[in-house]
Amino acid sequence: MTEWLIFPSGDAAKLERRLPPVTPEGRGSGGVPVRAEEPEGGSAAASPPTGGKNTTPAARPFVTLTFATSLDSSLALAPGVRTAISGPESKAMTHFLRSRHDAILVGAGTAVADDPGLNCRLAASPRRGARRPEHQPRPVVVDPRGRWHFSEESKVMRLVDSSAGLAPFIIITPAALDEVPAERRAVLESRGGKYIVLGQDQVQSHMAGAEGPNTGVWDWSGILSVIYAEGIQSLMIEGGGGVINTLLEGQRNRALVDSVIITIAPTWLGPGGVVVSPARELDANGVPAPALRLADVSWHQLGDDMVLCGNMGC
Amino acid sequence: MTEWLIFPSGDAAKLERRLPPVTPEGRGSGGVPVRAEEPEGGSAAASPPTGGKNTTPAARPFVTLTFATSLDSSLALAPGVRTAISGPESKAMTHFLRSRHDAILVGAGTAVADDPGLNCRLAASPRRGARRPEHQPRPVVVDPRGRWHFSEESKVMRLVDSSAGLAPFIIITPAALDEVPAERRAVLESRGGKYIVLGQDQVQSHMAGAEGPNTGVWDWSGILSVIYAEGIQSLMIEGGGGVINTLLEGQRNRALVDSVIITIAPTWLGPGGVVVSPARELDANGVPAPALRLADVSWHQLGDDMVLCGNMGC
Repeated sequence: MTEWLIFPSGDAAKLERRLPPVTPEGRGSGGVPVRAEEPEGGSAAASPPTGGKNTTPAARPFVTLTFATSLDSSLALAPGVRTAISGPESKAMTHFLRSRHDAILVGAGTAVADDPGLNCRLAASPRRGARRPEHQPRPVVVDPRGRWHFSEESKVMRLVDSSAGLAPFIIITPAALDEVPAERRAVLESRGGKYIVLGQDQVQSHMAGAEGPNTGVWDWSGILSVIYAEGIQSLMIEGGGGVINTLLEGQRNRALVDSVIITIAPTWLGPGGVVVSPARELDANGVPAPALRLADVSWHQLGDDMVLCGNMGC
Repeated sequence: MTEWLIFPSGDAAKLERRLPPVTPEGRGSGGVPVRAEEPEGGSAAASPPTGGKNTTPAARPFVTLTFATSLDSSLALAPGVRTAISGPESKAMTHFLRSRHDAILVGAGTAVADDPGLNCRLAASPRRGARRPEHQPRPVVVDPRGRWHFSEESKVMRLVDSSAGLAPFIIITPAALDEVPAERRAVLESRGGKYIVLGQDQVQSHMAGAEGPNTGVWDWSGILSVIYAEGIQSLMIEGGGGVINTLLEGQRNRALVDSVIITIAPTWLGPGGVVVSPARELDANGVPAPALRLADVSWHQLGDDMVLCGNMGC
């Protein structure tokens, strides 16, 4: 039995300017760029704002980075431990946000650990009783090494089978795709999902990361470019910790994020959790400087939680 | 030239129920317990609420725990590095809170690292122009090992000399007091400050803490008891990280805190800072549980920052 969620229109209105623009053509129609100008020589030639940089970045979707943390910036007690942090109002907000994006992106770690549904359960007609939402976002899983061993029992696949969600697009390297068993691939493709192959140069893995052997340095610009080429014009990035931290680190990655929406719950998880804390930078004298301050900040209370909206200021 | 701060009365009103009660006798009058009933056999017999425990805790002041963190729960980039986290409105709130407490407590690490003023710079008559506040809180420095080598040039002493603050009470062990040079002691005592000697059993030092050799396991109940015996009926605990974390850890310490007021700024400092993250606890099966959720929560925006008020629910 699906639990339909309702997000009050007053709260929704406060978030409106943080969301991707709604085009007359609707969502996910493909071919009508929202963020970028009409490409001249193919979609890769379009130009979102670049902060005056002298390069021509690839066209990309409108990107909303959103997650919920404790007061000590933890997403979860440990990788793979589902941790109740935020309250029911925040959960409804997440599904409202999903209703307003073409796709939802998570890293492979989250897919492996959480078996997430990645669908939208916002009631389509809250006044006239709960109804299946008209729009389902496309799940996108960034899984360069093919770590996510899903099956037809995975929650996201079961939701497809009950017409309550879309099958994922999985971003993978050619080498990892070669290792995917045909059966698993069939589970995905028979439901309308697919693998999207990234070049090896777009995934520079490094094994020395503090977060263990699965940390990767991803070329987010390249990833967003291939996602955009699939007709996805708005992307909500939900996690996990590695994905979030890398997008908060460095001018190049931050420039890819249009909107940041963070739910903060009045709880501490304690040391040892999955922490959002982007690496700080050193100033010209080698002195550490704060990693990042959000710009254009607004705060909105939802139940006992606080929702912080802002952008990267670039 | 002193910069006088103004805290809007509307914001003050929102915090009122989080503050220690104002007694007709005024603050710091000594001998009139606010939290506890009139002691029968000396001040140590009074009983603040204990959550039904069958012990008689020592009388203690009303305790407000307050601090400002980044989104990743850092108080500072590193110990001793003054880090601008919260905005001017939050700073004014801190001085408003100081105007409403008999005393301010910090750990020795903060005193050593920050050379703090620990006075109140709230304008007494904001409408009629800035004026020296009528009340100055008593600085209390918990320095069991005598690490704080202050002099008459220390900020807190200079503020005494310009009638803009009170000299500190320093909580120390007998062994450490023996090592304090007579000159330093004279700097303190000639200004109306003093050392308060704790028994060794009240300071169980342990050298294996993650925060380095200066971490101590303090008997907060004993510390609050000796502070209360000085006529201090309301205490604002401001830091640093070790002090805050220990007060958030364990039912016994939490029961000593009446009010928690946290300012959260929309910035990340990055890993390596002085982090507030109380140790988590294990449930009956050895599974980690979230460390702590605040009760009776309210949020109040101040400039770009958010102020979270709550209590320990005990």
